[in-house]
Amino acid sequence: MMTRKEIKQNRKLAQALFNKAGIVTTKNEADSIEVADFGLGAYKQTGLALLVYVNTDRCCAKELALLPCQTCPEHRHPQVDRNNPGKEETFRCRWGTIYLYVPGPKTRHAQARPPKANLPNANPPKAYPPTDKASAYTVWHEIVLKPGAQYTLAPDTLHWFQAGAQGAVVSEFSTRSVDAKDVFTDREIQRTTRIG
Amino acid sequence: MMTRKEIKQNRKLAQALFNKAGIVTTKNEADSIEVADFGLGAYKQTGLALLVYVNTDRCCAKELALLPCQTCPEHRHPQVDRNNPGKEETFRCRWGTIYLYVPGPKTRHAQARPPKANLPNANPPKAYPPTDKASAYTVWHEIVLKPGAQYTLAPDTLHWFQAGAQGAVVSEFSTRSVDAKDVFTDREIQRTTRIG
Repeated sequence: MMTRKEIKQNRKLAQALFNKAGIVTTKNEADSIEVADFGLGAYKQTGLALLVYVNTDRCCAKELALLPCQTCPEHRHPQVDRNNPGKEETFRCRWGTIYLYVPGPKTRHAQARPPKANLPNANPPKAYPPTDKASAYTVWHEIVLKPGAQYTLAPDTLHWFQAGAQGAVVSEFSTRSVDAKDVFTDREIQRTTRIG
Repeated sequence: MMTRKEIKQNRKLAQALFNKAGIVTTKNEADSIEVADFGLGAYKQTGLALLVYVNTDRCCAKELALLPCQTCPEHRHPQVDRNNPGKEETFRCRWGTIYLYVPGPKTRHAQARPPKANLPNANPPKAYPPTDKASAYTVWHEIVLKPGAQYTLAPDTLHWFQAGAQGAVVSEFSTRSVDAKDVFTDREIQRTTRIG
């Protein structure tokens, strides 16, 4: 749950990231940025800001803004109906760094806890999910996206991502978004942000 | 027809526009920008540079770069097969100005010839197609897109567009692109650029 004031503040933080990425938005767009806390009430840790440019029956485009080290929690976009086998999406990094995790060989050292300071670690993991949510993060094949790099996810593929230390701006190009149908590994998550 | 050298030069001009728009591309992408002269051999007048980010069976995203006053000629994206009613596309201006023309009430003064210098003209047209191609431009409802503004075209809608005096960068979000199926009003046009 977030207050209206918190939503307004977090919209400003997202807009500041869009500005850094050179992305121009209208005032109406800036005022309609979606601020999602996934019902966990810890936005700066687990959250995402979204500006939806277009979302028709056939295709969708958005900008995503992530605060430093902010995590979009693990989820998938399942088949919605006979005509929609689930959302296919491409993430393109525009600014900052995104660590994207998908099914596949586990990236060495990737783990759901911070590295021990005294442990030699030649290939440290790039991102950590919240320590109290380790079981809600099950895919560990790491894709690092810097500006100009992109990755396409097939429908119904589990994935999560975390911004680097500066935050990140990511363009998402996809088929129709039906966010309410997203399936999160963490069953405590509610996709629709409650305002209180 | 364009020589390999001309294509290389025009890719550089497109990349310079992407840079102005703050759009980061990889070296591979910069080297693969499509330079389309529509077979008319007058690229700086009638042409378009395209960087395709993704084009799957279901969706597509591109950046378009237009030189100052360069025109993308009138065309439509017809039904391709029973499962594809034609390409639906959204243009979002990222940098510069785009004058987009679609079916609808003719914008006052819009016409296929430059205004006479001695004619009072309170509401001048924003764009002119090449004077020797007047009959190939039949829709005259003007949409002006500045950075942050966008417009969605239904499938099979005739449209053409011209950049303002600085040139323009436009993001295109759409269903699958099948450029070879595009129907141009000017029958002299060949969508695939020949290299000679």
